[in-house]
Amino acid sequence: MVIVIRDNATDVQVNELMDWLQGFNVKTNLVEGVHSRIIGLIGDTTPIDIDAVKARGIVESVKRVQEPYKNANRRFHPDDTIIEAGGVTIGGGGLTVMAGPCSVETEKQLMETAIAVKEAGADMLRGGAFKPRTSPYAFQGLGKEGIELLLKAKKETGLPIVTEIMDLSDLDLFADVDVVQVGARNMQNFTLLKALGRCDKPVLLKRGLSATLQELLMSAEYIMSEGNSKVMLCERGIRTFETETRNTLDISAVPLLRQKTHLPLVIDPSHATGISSLVEPMAICAVAAGADALEIEVHIDPKTAWSDGAQSLTPEQFKTSMRKIRAMENFRKTELAD
Amino acid sequence: MVIVIRDNATDVQVNELMDWLQGFNVKTNLVEGVHSRIIGLIGDTTPIDIDAVKARGIVESVKRVQEPYKNANRRFHPDDTIIEAGGVTIGGGGLTVMAGPCSVETEKQLMETAIAVKEAGADMLRGGAFKPRTSPYAFQGLGKEGIELLLKAKKETGLPIVTEIMDLSDLDLFADVDVVQVGARNMQNFTLLKALGRCDKPVLLKRGLSATLQELLMSAEYIMSEGNSKVMLCERGIRTFETETRNTLDISAVPLLRQKTHLPLVIDPSHATGISSLVEPMAICAVAAGADALEIEVHIDPKTAWSDGAQSLTPEQFKTSMRKIRAMENFRKTELAD
Amino acid sequence: MVIVIRDNATDVQVNELMDWLQGFNVKTNLVEGVHSRIIGLIGDTTPIDIDAVKARGIVESVKRVQEPYKNANRRFHPDDTIIEAGGVTIGGGGLTVMAGPCSVETEKQLMETAIAVKEAGADMLRGGAFKPRTSPYAFQGLGKEGIELLLKAKKETGLPIVTEIMDLSDLDLFADVDVVQVGARNMQNFTLLKALGRCDKPVLLKRGLSATLQELLMSAEYIMSEGNSKVMLCERGIRTFETETRNTLDISAVPLLRQKTHLPLVIDPSHATGISSLVEPMAICAVAAGADALEIEVHIDPKTAWSDGAQSLTPEQFKTSMRKIRAMENFRKTELAD
Amino acid sequence: MVIVIRDNATDVQVNELMDWLQGFNVKTNLVEGVHSRIIGLIGDTTPIDIDAVKARGIVESVKRVQEPYKNANRRFHPDDTIIEAGGVTIGGGGLTVMAGPCSVETEKQLMETAIAVKEAGADMLRGGAFKPRTSPYAFQGLGKEGIELLLKAKKETGLPIVTEIMDLSDLDLFADVDVVQVGARNMQNFTLLKALGRCDKPVLLKRGLSATLQELLMSAEYIMSEGNSKVMLCERGIRTFETETRNTLDISAVPLLRQKTHLPLVIDPSHATGISSLVEPMAICAVAAGADALEIEVHIDPKTAWSDGAQSLTPEQFKTSMRKIRAMENFRKTELAD
Repeated sequence: MVIVIRDNATDVQVNELMDWLQGFNVKTNLVEGVHSRIIGLIGDTTPIDIDAVKARGIVESVKRVQEPYKNANRRFHPDDTIIEAGGVTIGGGGLTVMAGPCSVETEKQLMETAIAVKEAGADMLRGGAFKPRTSPYAFQGLGKEGIELLLKAKKETGLPIVTEIMDLSDLDLFADVDVVQVGARNMQNFTLLKALGRCDKPVLLKRGLSATLQELLMSAEYIMSEGNSKVMLCERGIRTFETETRNTLDISAVPLLRQKTHLPLVIDPSHATGISSLVEPMAICAVAAGADALEIEVHIDPKTAWSDGAQSLTPEQFKTSMRKIRAMENFRKTELAD
Repeated sequence: MVIVIRDNATDVQVNELMDWLQGFNVKTNLVEGVHSRIIGLIGDTTPIDIDAVKARGIVESVKRVQEPYKNANRRFHPDDTIIEAGGVTIGGGGLTVMAGPCSVETEKQLMETAIAVKEAGADMLRGGAFKPRTSPYAFQGLGKEGIELLLKAKKETGLPIVTEIMDLSDLDLFADVDVVQVGARNMQNFTLLKALGRCDKPVLLKRGLSATLQELLMSAEYIMSEGNSKVMLCERGIRTFETETRNTLDISAVPLLRQKTHLPLVIDPSHATGISSLVEPMAICAVAAGADALEIEVHIDPKTAWSDGAQSLTPEQFKTSMRKIRAMENFRKTELAD
Repeated sequence: MVIVIRDNATDVQVNELMDWLQGFNVKTNLVEGVHSRIIGLIGDTTPIDIDAVKARGIVESVKRVQEPYKNANRRFHPDDTIIEAGGVTIGGGGLTVMAGPCSVETEKQLMETAIAVKEAGADMLRGGAFKPRTSPYAFQGLGKEGIELLLKAKKETGLPIVTEIMDLSDLDLFADVDVVQVGARNMQNFTLLKALGRCDKPVLLKRGLSATLQELLMSAEYIMSEGNSKVMLCERGIRTFETETRNTLDISAVPLLRQKTHLPLVIDPSHATGISSLVEPMAICAVAAGADALEIEVHIDPKTAWSDGAQSLTPEQFKTSMRKIRAMENFRKTELAD
Repeated sequence: MVIVIRDNATDVQVNELMDWLQGFNVKTNLVEGVHSRIIGLIGDTTPIDIDAVKARGIVESVKRVQEPYKNANRRFHPDDTIIEAGGVTIGGGGLTVMAGPCSVETEKQLMETAIAVKEAGADMLRGGAFKPRTSPYAFQGLGKEGIELLLKAKKETGLPIVTEIMDLSDLDLFADVDVVQVGARNMQNFTLLKALGRCDKPVLLKRGLSATLQELLMSAEYIMSEGNSKVMLCERGIRTFETETRNTLDISAVPLLRQKTHLPLVIDPSHATGISSLVEPMAICAVAAGADALEIEVHIDPKTAWSDGAQSLTPEQFKTSMRKIRAMENFRKTELAD
């Protein structure tokens, strides 16, 4: 941590600040400049609250040198994390495809979709039982009944399931769910993150609409610091000024996060674009960029979907896309590997 | 609602779409253009999910004409809502000042601050017991003990209290709290919003970091649609590219929301700027713009605050600022009124 | 400047870097940490290109301690700059009001508006002759003829004029213009800025749509570094996710820039909001925040304006607003001064 | 175009508005709703200024149904545009690679880089002679001398050259340049765009930092409406809240623009990320997404580059990347084609 001191600070104030900092078991190193003085801290600065430093009247600015996350940090955990969920692995070089409808609507709709995505080569079934919707007047999901239908589809097809939790009071319903998803709007629902950190269950954590990658990693750290290290990070598009697409897929997040963290990386091209014709090219891009998994929305009849139909593929489209996606996966393994 | 149809749609498809729409008890009106056809809907379109319309393959784009919120809409509720909380009113032309520390830290810290803000003319005491922090390693708030200290300070000073809830499992602890605050990160925690909608308690709803004003109103609608109409909306700065300030205060939200809604409007200049020297000018601006209330952070010793010290005023600074704020309130009543 | 060195850098590489830096006449101070080393630079770092430092393979990150602008920096020029333009002053405690149509359309339109704004108490006449429009099919301004009409209006009313330049090839036409405006889209048209820096003419520099305040100050520095110090900075709204308003007025820019720079500060509430009913409240806010000048669009018949009619005030509205604006100016001088 | 009328508009006002609109040779179709009336326009609405419509007091909102660009619109020009520049083609299914240093620095630096990129398989040489820099104190480019060195390198290697123009007063210097680049900061320098529209020379138009794709297309329209249809569009990263990367590459722009326009599409992974280790994965992604060309920064010694060294590849790295890029190009042609 590097702290820049204001011009008008007295020596007494600077010494007082250094004494306080040394209380965190770090060494302080004062650099005297012409217009300003700088304090460099040496040691583990994670427990030092950067806001508390900024609040000192004599501090002009502060910069962290080390990342503020430990458990999620590749520096301290060089090997890739591989997560096992319902017999399927995520991470470690392969590509895991999670597919299914945005919302669970009816038994027929879910079963037909589940069977179709399995036949097309998906590894896991996704589907929403609890749906975060901007409007209270929009379909809010089937809730408990939706989870039950997912478990039925899992039994039927053998596909492990991934579905979103919206509140920790529903946690008991997720006992047999294979991957618990935390949606973009809940990325900083810290109480929920801590509760999931105390479960022994894989968590798919989605990046918030305007969150930085460091904030995403800090949210992963919330889960991991409570003991659960089975966290995968999902880029699902960020909010930008572009209005043609629902969000903007930040594809560079894949190689960048790969450098920063050992956690598996998931891309959701459906929410990232909001347009079904862009899902295939963005899924292929994601594989080219090195993603460990994809989460893709498929609906047996998108035009009658109760939510997000505009971004859903038909089973037929998904089948065609999967051929290209798997070809790309194979090309990645053979031609793009270092 | 206006629906633009793709060029290549057949008459059969267009008729099918119109039949489906008529099922929502609206009338459809087809306008035939050269390159495109448009369907105009007449009637209450609130129950129609705009995403479901977009999902129809033949739909090029959709535009809502009416706002998607009803309870929060000034069109249907022309008179300003005035909220009573612990004997203090918010809305209706006056200015309510909520002040206190970012976090409740100790009994001494809270009591001294409470007494100081009361003497300076604050109407309510604010203070955080549950603190949403980006890092799991930062101070997370005193929790239940913090609420108890706030209630003690309320008893001592007579000031009603406003404090943040982070999860609905803590709701029982808020029985004697006068105003329940929902933080920016929870603006779209829809399960929490619905639960608060079933309470008979004023809610201060903060705008999310990158939320639009319509999204803020839709979140208010979540609370109101469950029966609780005591909602005040708080602008606390949005995320922009500017890095000198913590966030960017969207001051035009005040006159704009005034046109759109009847709910009281609160400005938080402390979080909006993150810099104590900007709190006073932004508080004055907020009063000039017509805000019903201010939420200001005050700490007996900002440089040792456990959170957000950099944006906290000292009791002395707050006292000086309050003189100008009250003068501005008076000027607004006498010179700026239409 | 503080430079953080990568873990794996060798001593030879670090020494090589320090040698290179010393070539800029600064002293280097190496701080050895546990996980990283930091170099603190002492002296004038303005000539050091931060990108060139980043490019060194062993550099993890760099942070400037000093602002990269000198001429615009209050640190080196503590007194407020006061600019004189056509007999009117901008800066120094008063409030200068520039008003007029978005575009100069006809002699009748301009003259009537000019007379009306003068009667209402405006200090300068604004009007666009060269208009930057998103579409090549929209009205592009009268060009040279527009400048001539403005000069005629100046002669008639005695009001100095402010108008926008779009390309330096038009510079000769601006010989008798009192203030040359550089629009938001040209804030980083560096060739134009340098050319204006060689003129002895006041420049009103508008902040780019997504520019930071530091970038705005660096653009001012471009003008000033060529010798022209008559620069005023104009906040005219930045692009955010909010769609109800055309842009978002960053009102905290006023007190913040006041701390950073000695240059006069202008607010344009018309472009910032794009909605005529928000112009008056935002103008009043700007005065409350301490702005030195306002730029307001007024049109004799907004509904037939050739550009930006939706944000233009009628002469009648402007007259009413001016009463409140001047009352606010007076209140600022008497009650808000420190 | 669909126009929503305010509730309180009188029939006389609505008729007056329709008369005015009919003056643009379009038909008007009035739809009467319960709370509002809508006017649908039929015919070519391109010449109607949407701002002028908004300015009418009785207009609540306006929505364009047709895109406001014609020349750049795939709807009217279904076939892909293929541009020829110095014997190289851009567009039409292949992949053109433009590579070279950010800035032209010295003859030696440029020649060595040119030879190296040619050997590695680049099709064109890029290099900046006029450099837009945020700071007036940073290296501003060699200007005319830089162009001369580029022409020398072209003669030497046979590679056509692409270089940026910053002001139209320099246009004569570009007579022998093969592709004229317009930088992100000049995307809305409309005077420059019009001048380039009157040249018979390929233009590489870069998207502005916070520009929407429609704004980019409108800027292309400025060039094309003056007669020059040799325009290629370049996505080079947009400004977002992410700070780890210099900008955020909007990769979905490729398939989306492919639907909207017939113009060739270029991706600049160097500026988009600002980090050399991300250039290769993003270049591969761009090819996977269907880009027609890449613009990549290569420097013989990035750590001593005068600008943007942090994002430059060494010749060795470029060579390795080119093998993967060409393999990806081949994979695209064989496996990803529909």
